[in-house]
Amino acid sequence: MAISTINASIITIGDELLIGQVIDTNSAWMSRELNSIGVWVRRRIAIGDNREDIWNALDQESNESQIILLTGGLGPTADDITKALLCEYFGGQLIVDPKALANVKNIFERILKRPMIDRNLKQAEVPDVCTVIQNKRGTAPGMWFEKEGKIFVSMPGVPHEMQGMMTGEVLPELKKRFILPFIQHKTLLTAGVGESFLAEHIKSFESSLAPQVSLAYLPNYGMVRLRLTASGENEEKLKNELETQFDTLKKLVSEWMVIDEDLSLEHAIGKLLREKNKTLSTAESCTGGYISHLITSIPGSSDYFKGSVVSYSNEIKEKLLHVNPQTLQNAGAVSRETARQMAAGALAIFNTDYTIAVTGIMGPDGGSPENPVGTVWVAVGSKQDIEEQRFHFRFDRLRNIELTSSNALNLLRKIIVAETPL
Amino acid sequence: MAISTINASIITIGDELLIGQVIDTNSAWMSRELNSIGVWVRRRIAIGDNREDIWNALDQESNESQIILLTGGLGPTADDITKALLCEYFGGQLIVDPKALANVKNIFERILKRPMIDRNLKQAEVPDVCTVIQNKRGTAPGMWFEKEGKIFVSMPGVPHEMQGMMTGEVLPELKKRFILPFIQHKTLLTAGVGESFLAEHIKSFESSLAPQVSLAYLPNYGMVRLRLTASGENEEKLKNELETQFDTLKKLVSEWMVIDEDLSLEHAIGKLLREKNKTLSTAESCTGGYISHLITSIPGSSDYFKGSVVSYSNEIKEKLLHVNPQTLQNAGAVSRETARQMAAGALAIFNTDYTIAVTGIMGPDGGSPENPVGTVWVAVGSKQDIEEQRFHFRFDRLRNIELTSSNALNLLRKIIVAETPL
Repeated sequence: MAISTINASIITIGDELLIGQVIDTNSAWMSRELNSIGVWVRRRIAIGDNREDIWNALDQESNESQIILLTGGLGPTADDITKALLCEYFGGQLIVDPKALANVKNIFERILKRPMIDRNLKQAEVPDVCTVIQNKRGTAPGMWFEKEGKIFVSMPGVPHEMQGMMTGEVLPELKKRFILPFIQHKTLLTAGVGESFLAEHIKSFESSLAPQVSLAYLPNYGMVRLRLTASGENEEKLKNELETQFDTLKKLVSEWMVIDEDLSLEHAIGKLLREKNKTLSTAESCTGGYISHLITSIPGSSDYFKGSVVSYSNEIKEKLLHVNPQTLQNAGAVSRETARQMAAGALAIFNTDYTIAVTGIMGPDGGSPENPVGTVWVAVGSKQDIEEQRFHFRFDRLRNIELTSSNALNLLRKIIVAETPL
Repeated sequence: MAISTINASIITIGDELLIGQVIDTNSAWMSRELNSIGVWVRRRIAIGDNREDIWNALDQESNESQIILLTGGLGPTADDITKALLCEYFGGQLIVDPKALANVKNIFERILKRPMIDRNLKQAEVPDVCTVIQNKRGTAPGMWFEKEGKIFVSMPGVPHEMQGMMTGEVLPELKKRFILPFIQHKTLLTAGVGESFLAEHIKSFESSLAPQVSLAYLPNYGMVRLRLTASGENEEKLKNELETQFDTLKKLVSEWMVIDEDLSLEHAIGKLLREKNKTLSTAESCTGGYISHLITSIPGSSDYFKGSVVSYSNEIKEKLLHVNPQTLQNAGAVSRETARQMAAGALAIFNTDYTIAVTGIMGPDGGSPENPVGTVWVAVGSKQDIEEQRFHFRFDRLRNIELTSSNALNLLRKIIVAETPL
C-alpha cells in the first residue's frame, strides 16, 4: 500500500508582514522541521489581522492540506483578533485555562518582575473546543483544533515561543497521528561556479536520476548549494540510492565543492581548522566585524578563533595593527599594501596560524575615481604566505559587506586546503 | 468619489521556500515599496516549483487582487518551470527577445568573463504576449502580463535583480495605471517596556483614534515599535491628523521612547553620537563583533565609530585590552570586573568618548553553576563613568548574541542621553 503524501499549509497572520515591517523567519524554520518528519509544506500564506482574510484562509488551506499551522495574531493588543476568530470558526466559547493562567502569573512574578494587568490575564483564555499547548517561553498558549479530519494548530508569532511548542508538542503529536513517508535530503555547497554552468556540467547526471530522487539548485551570494532529495516508502532502499547518487554528484563537482554537508561556509571553515588544529584571527575595516561575527556564530568557535581588530579608522590601523603610516599616506587605506600589512599585524598580535584582513569602501558614500564604492582588498594567509585579491561589488552596503565576507572566507578555505591537505 | 483600495498579492515560487532552505526577504521589501505608493498587499503566498500549484495560485490571487507580483522560478535549470507555464497561462509562444539576448551576452562577455552556454541563451526567451522588463542586474528578464483587467508581473527571485526592476519600471508604471489612495505611516521605537503594559498605558488614546488612523504594535527583541497608519483620500487632512496623533503618542510613551522614526536602535545611536559630536568603540567577547557589525551597518558610521577589539581569548583580553591577569584568574572572564576593565581598556586604546564592553557565555556549551549559559556582563560608559549590568538570556546562541547586543546598545543610549542632554 502506498503511503499518501501528508500536506501542510502555514498561515502567518499580522499586518506587519503585509507592510513589510518584519521578515518572516518562522515559516522557513517550520518548513524545515515539518519536512524532516516527512510532512510536505504545500503552501505558505501571509495575511493581515483581518477577519475575512483569516476566515477565508482557513477554508482555503484546509482544502489543500491535512495540517494547517498558524502563527501570529495572538498578542494581547486590540489588533490581534485571531483567538476570538478561531473560537467562532470552531464553534467554541472562551474559557480561562488554569495551567495557562498559572504560567502567565509565574512569568510576571518571577521573570519579568512587573505588575500584571487584566490584559495579561486575557492571555490565559482559550476556546473550550481546543487542546491547549502550554507556552513554556511566553504568555500566549498554543491551540490545537480538529475539524472534518483536518488538524489546525495556532501558535504565537514570537519565534522561540513557536519553536518551543513545535519541538515539544506539535511535531511529536503529528508523528503519532500520520503514517509519514520517509524524506531525506543531502546537500553540498559549491563556490566559484555559476548555476547555469553547474547545471550544464551535471546535465546527464540529473536526467539519469531515479524518479524518487530530485535535484535542486540553491544559489546564494555567489555560492550554489546542490540538494538531492529522496522520498518514498522503502527507507533502506532510498538511503542507499541517495548515498550512491550523492557520491556521484560529489565527484562531478569536486573542483568547486566547499563541503558535502548542509553547512555554511563559516561552519565548514570551523571544521577544517578544528581538524587541522589551527587558529584564526581577523583584521576588519570595511566589514566592521561581520566576518568575526560569522565565525563566532558557530558553537565552539572559541577553540580556534582568537579574535579580531575592527580598525574603522587609519589611526587604529597604525596603532593596533602596525600598518605603516607611510603606506596609508602613499598607497591609501584601500590598497594591496594596507591589506597585507593589516594581515601581518593581525598574525603577529593574535599569534594565530591564519588571518583574514579586509579593507574597502562599502558605500553608499566614500567612493573615489580610483576606488569606487564596492572596491575591496582582501589579504588572507599565514606567517608563511599572505595572498591578496581585489574585488569590486556593485550592490548596497549590507550586501557588499556580506559578499566581501563570503569571498574572503572562501579565499581562506582554499588556502587552508592547499597548504595542509588532509 | 471614493478611491477604491488597490490590492496586490505576492506569489513567491520555489521548492527551497517550502523546505525552509532559504528565508524569503523579497516579500517584505516588495510589501514596503507597494505600500509606499498606496497599494495594499492583501496576501503573500509561497508555493513550490509545481505546475498545478502555480496555476491555481494565479487563478486564486487574481480573484483577490488587481495586481499579482511573482518572484522566483525563472532560473536556467530544470526545476524552474515558471516561464513556460506563464506562456501557456496567458496563451503565448516563447520567442527570443533581442534586448534580453544582448543583455545576457554582455553579462557573460564583460562581467562574468565566462563562456556562455545554450542554457544561458534560453534566459533571453520570453512569451510573445508580455511586455518585457529588462534586467539590468542579471540574465533573467521580467515579464508584465495583463488578463481580464488584472496585472501580473513575473520577476527573478534574486533580491537585487527584482529590486532593480521594481524601482526602475514596475512601481512607476503602477502609479500611472491606478488612482491610488494616500497612505502614510509614522513609527516610533520603545525599549524596556512590555507590549501589554504599553497597550494598557495608551488604551484611551487608541480607542479615541479616528477611523482612518490605526495603531499597530511591533514587538521585537525586547523592544516594541508603535506604528500609526493613516490612509484615505485627503492627503493634507490625513497628514495633519497623523502628525497630531503622533505627537500625542510620543508624549504618552516618552519614558520608553528610543527614537520617533522608523529606525533601528543602532541607527538612533548613530544619530545621537553625530549630533553630540561624540565617538564610540567596542570591546567584545561573547558577541564576537556583532555589536560592531550593527553599528557599522549604518552608512557614514566611520564618522563616529573608531573600531572594536574582539577578544575571544583571555590572552587577547590581557594583551590588547589590558585586563589584569589577576582579575581573569580570580573573578573570571565573565565578571563585573573583567567587563569594566575591558571597557576601560577600549576607552584608552581607541581614545573614544564612549565604549561598550561585553563578556558572557552564549551557549550551547561553556556554562557553569556560577555562570550558566546566557550570563552576560555588560560595561558601558565614558572615561568619566562606567556602568556595569548583568543579564541572563535563555535562548539559543544567535538570539543570545542579538539580545546581548540590543540591550548593551540601549544601555549606551540611556547613558549618552543622561550625560549630555540635548
